[in-house]
Amino acid sequence: MELAECIGAACEGDEGAARSEITEVASYSLAGPCSLVFAEHARYLDAALASSAGALIVPERVSLPSASASGSNGKVILRAKNPRLAFALAAAELRRVEGREAGIAHSAVVDPSAEVHAGALVEALTVVGAGARIGARSRIGAGCVIGPGVVIGRDCELAPRVVVCSGTTLGDRVIVRAGAVLGSEGFGFVPDPESGRYYKFPQIGRLEIGDDVEIGANTTVDRGALDATVLADGVKLDNLVQVAHNVRLGRNVVVASQTGISGSSVLEDNVLVGGQVGIADHVRIEEGAILGAQCGVPSKKVVRGKGVIFWGTPARPIADYLRELATLARLARKKK
Amino acid sequence: MELAECIGAACEGDEGAARSEITEVASYSLAGPCSLVFAEHARYLDAALASSAGALIVPERVSLPSASASGSNGKVILRAKNPRLAFALAAAELRRVEGREAGIAHSAVVDPSAEVHAGALVEALTVVGAGARIGARSRIGAGCVIGPGVVIGRDCELAPRVVVCSGTTLGDRVIVRAGAVLGSEGFGFVPDPESGRYYKFPQIGRLEIGDDVEIGANTTVDRGALDATVLADGVKLDNLVQVAHNVRLGRNVVVASQTGISGSSVLEDNVLVGGQVGIADHVRIEEGAILGAQCGVPSKKVVRGKGVIFWGTPARPIADYLRELATLARLARKKK
Amino acid sequence: MELAECIGAACEGDEGAARSEITEVASYSLAGPCSLVFAEHARYLDAALASSAGALIVPERVSLPSASASGSNGKVILRAKNPRLAFALAAAELRRVEGREAGIAHSAVVDPSAEVHAGALVEALTVVGAGARIGARSRIGAGCVIGPGVVIGRDCELAPRVVVCSGTTLGDRVIVRAGAVLGSEGFGFVPDPESGRYYKFPQIGRLEIGDDVEIGANTTVDRGALDATVLADGVKLDNLVQVAHNVRLGRNVVVASQTGISGSSVLEDNVLVGGQVGIADHVRIEEGAILGAQCGVPSKKVVRGKGVIFWGTPARPIADYLRELATLARLARKKK
Repeated sequence: MELAECIGAACEGDEGAARSEITEVASYSLAGPCSLVFAEHARYLDAALASSAGALIVPERVSLPSASASGSNGKVILRAKNPRLAFALAAAELRRVEGREAGIAHSAVVDPSAEVHAGALVEALTVVGAGARIGARSRIGAGCVIGPGVVIGRDCELAPRVVVCSGTTLGDRVIVRAGAVLGSEGFGFVPDPESGRYYKFPQIGRLEIGDDVEIGANTTVDRGALDATVLADGVKLDNLVQVAHNVRLGRNVVVASQTGISGSSVLEDNVLVGGQVGIADHVRIEEGAILGAQCGVPSKKVVRGKGVIFWGTPARPIADYLRELATLARLARKKK
Repeated sequence: MELAECIGAACEGDEGAARSEITEVASYSLAGPCSLVFAEHARYLDAALASSAGALIVPERVSLPSASASGSNGKVILRAKNPRLAFALAAAELRRVEGREAGIAHSAVVDPSAEVHAGALVEALTVVGAGARIGARSRIGAGCVIGPGVVIGRDCELAPRVVVCSGTTLGDRVIVRAGAVLGSEGFGFVPDPESGRYYKFPQIGRLEIGDDVEIGANTTVDRGALDATVLADGVKLDNLVQVAHNVRLGRNVVVASQTGISGSSVLEDNVLVGGQVGIADHVRIEEGAILGAQCGVPSKKVVRGKGVIFWGTPARPIADYLRELATLARLARKKK
Repeated sequence: MELAECIGAACEGDEGAARSEITEVASYSLAGPCSLVFAEHARYLDAALASSAGALIVPERVSLPSASASGSNGKVILRAKNPRLAFALAAAELRRVEGREAGIAHSAVVDPSAEVHAGALVEALTVVGAGARIGARSRIGAGCVIGPGVVIGRDCELAPRVVVCSGTTLGDRVIVRAGAVLGSEGFGFVPDPESGRYYKFPQIGRLEIGDDVEIGANTTVDRGALDATVLADGVKLDNLVQVAHNVRLGRNVVVASQTGISGSSVLEDNVLVGGQVGIADHVRIEEGAILGAQCGVPSKKVVRGKGVIFWGTPARPIADYLRELATLARLARKKK
């Protein structure tokens, strides 16, 4: 079973039979003979073996229950150090195989000067602007708008109705979910003190997105004002996230839903950000810090502490915040 | 006046004349002879009667002002127990009548294997994928993308540019406003401790949406990871709401704008959620609880209390929260 | 150099040569001979002069460094009272010149009864509904949906995939970024106490947008329920903002990303609102007040104070809020 090799697992059972048969990952309840499931702990083994799955990822040294004759119910058993990770890798591999469709839909509007790789797929009613480039095996969903000059790497997947504006480049294996807007003009104005009016400051910089980035549905990432907004390799953004102009997100930064990151802020590598967090402008979050859900980081602050969780507005170490909450609750009870 | 029957109202005045004439609901200022308006309280009666509306819903036992000759200014008077509710029902009825347009726009791209009911409407530049089914009298707005295998019930209304991804089913009378994304892949990753990288956990479950659900503009509802995300009958979501994978929303749950509900959380029937609320993962909000705007419910919490309002982060009964705020304000004043 | 006149600057250097050459604004690093850059303070002068820009805006009375032979490195020097503002005005002027493309893309679906000005541009796969009107020099991006009867003024720019629903009017020079939804139905229901169900209250009012308004990507602005939602001249909304039905925003109100404004609230002229602010329904924010990021204004409150910053939930003057935070931190430390 070549899949075993891809995911770093050791194979037991009827390898030959399974080789060509596993075509999808699945839950126990929906699994069929072509499905792969996983049991993260020994306690899930019975359920996994009782499913109709054709193959099963289990922890390396777990014993299969003696109740089943062969011990495996006729399934291919894949032993992995980290079954959850192996399952994720298997899903990615099967997705790659499944995605081998290519071509440009008749209803798509592709500028003659755009370069769409012969192995890429452009779905119905998508617009590809002048000079844009789309790499091998990338799939552009229905109703997307790819602006002039945009560069999209290899093995990318854009869901339907994504907008990628001029001035944006995507690396390889980037996943963008439906409705996201990449490289839009940022929010910058110059007030005229005499009239009280605001004049648009030019928003003409670039948006540079690395490899293996994932961007959620209806998320917005603005281009730089004059320079660049940068999302490094491995950044993961959930749905409805806002990333403003000139922000820099380091490698493997993960941002949960509805968080907003204001102009020119920097999140260093491996920062984790919960949902609905607000990061003001010109903030620096240093490597590996963790921002709890709904916390707020005021303008120009530096947040430091690898593995430290910050909470509240203004964000402070969670131990401090919880002590304050407890103190306040106690004082309020006294005065009742 | 058949409309009276539909909305449970008793009719006074010139029924015959009004029967075929009322075609719309309206405000007092915009009403014309074909319009229906309502007066929730006696104090609005004068204004309602002074409008140009052809018909008027009033409270059951209210006396019409003697100043007007007939008492009704020549309008049809509909007496209802709950005039606001009767007005809402009338609007729904008139909307149904108005919406009796059907067919598939020439510019739509409908897969030959899709089943679009002859009484349904598919507007311009909409994509309908292989095997999708669209029920009687449903209207799919311009620029929508309906994924392969999606099932949409009867009398649904999708505004322009909605995306419904594969794996999603909608019941009957579902309203989806523009830009919403239904059934997108959720945000789930498996970290590889060795490389620090995150690998996508498969997001291949279903999204099941019941009857009479309304979903706001640019709202995002993710499909389950392996199982299902479920929105029960009567759920109402405002704009820019985020519902993550595997969430379950009970009957008649109402969620205001910009609220986020994280993975696998459950909101039981009749829960009310204000705007910008953050609900972490694996939370249970029990039946009839009310979450005030901007409050936050931490991971795995159970919130219990029918009709109780919760506020703050972490969310607590509003009486406790207000006492804490008052205590803190008093202490801060002392130290001035 | 006519540009100098447009932006209220005085010109030094080789006017003739520069007249036709400046075609864009740029950052120092990306500037070329056709670019205009600016130096806001004397300390940026060296960098600006070292760039390849053909022209440079500097403060009125600044001395050019003697190090450069001519003092200007051969660049055209524009002296302005407010260089940043002059730069913004120059960008707007150059954008106007650049945007002189017109016509309707073949793939657009424009109703025969729509009136598109001969000088307007309608890009690929855009839908324009019956009776809609689009003014001179306005540009409608790819994949937009302009509803029946919508009126769009002159010199507007709609990015791709904007939805403008029926009942909406836009003034002149309005900029709408990708994915925004204007004039969608609001979130209003009438509960039926007997069944526990919610019935949709009609959402049939108007959305009126003034001149010089800018609206961010994936932002949602709902139409009035029966009356109107109004955005006055000069309003600026960032990305992912929510404006509910019947809201009124005064002149030059500025709202940062992910803020939500609930039904019927009023923000008077020159109010500034930070990111992720929550404004409940029927609130009045009086002229010139400033709402700090993430603060919350409860239902029906009046917030008053020109130039006063409010913070926290419920929002209070920032001095009070900071004193409370300090008091609480001190008390919590004592109890450690």
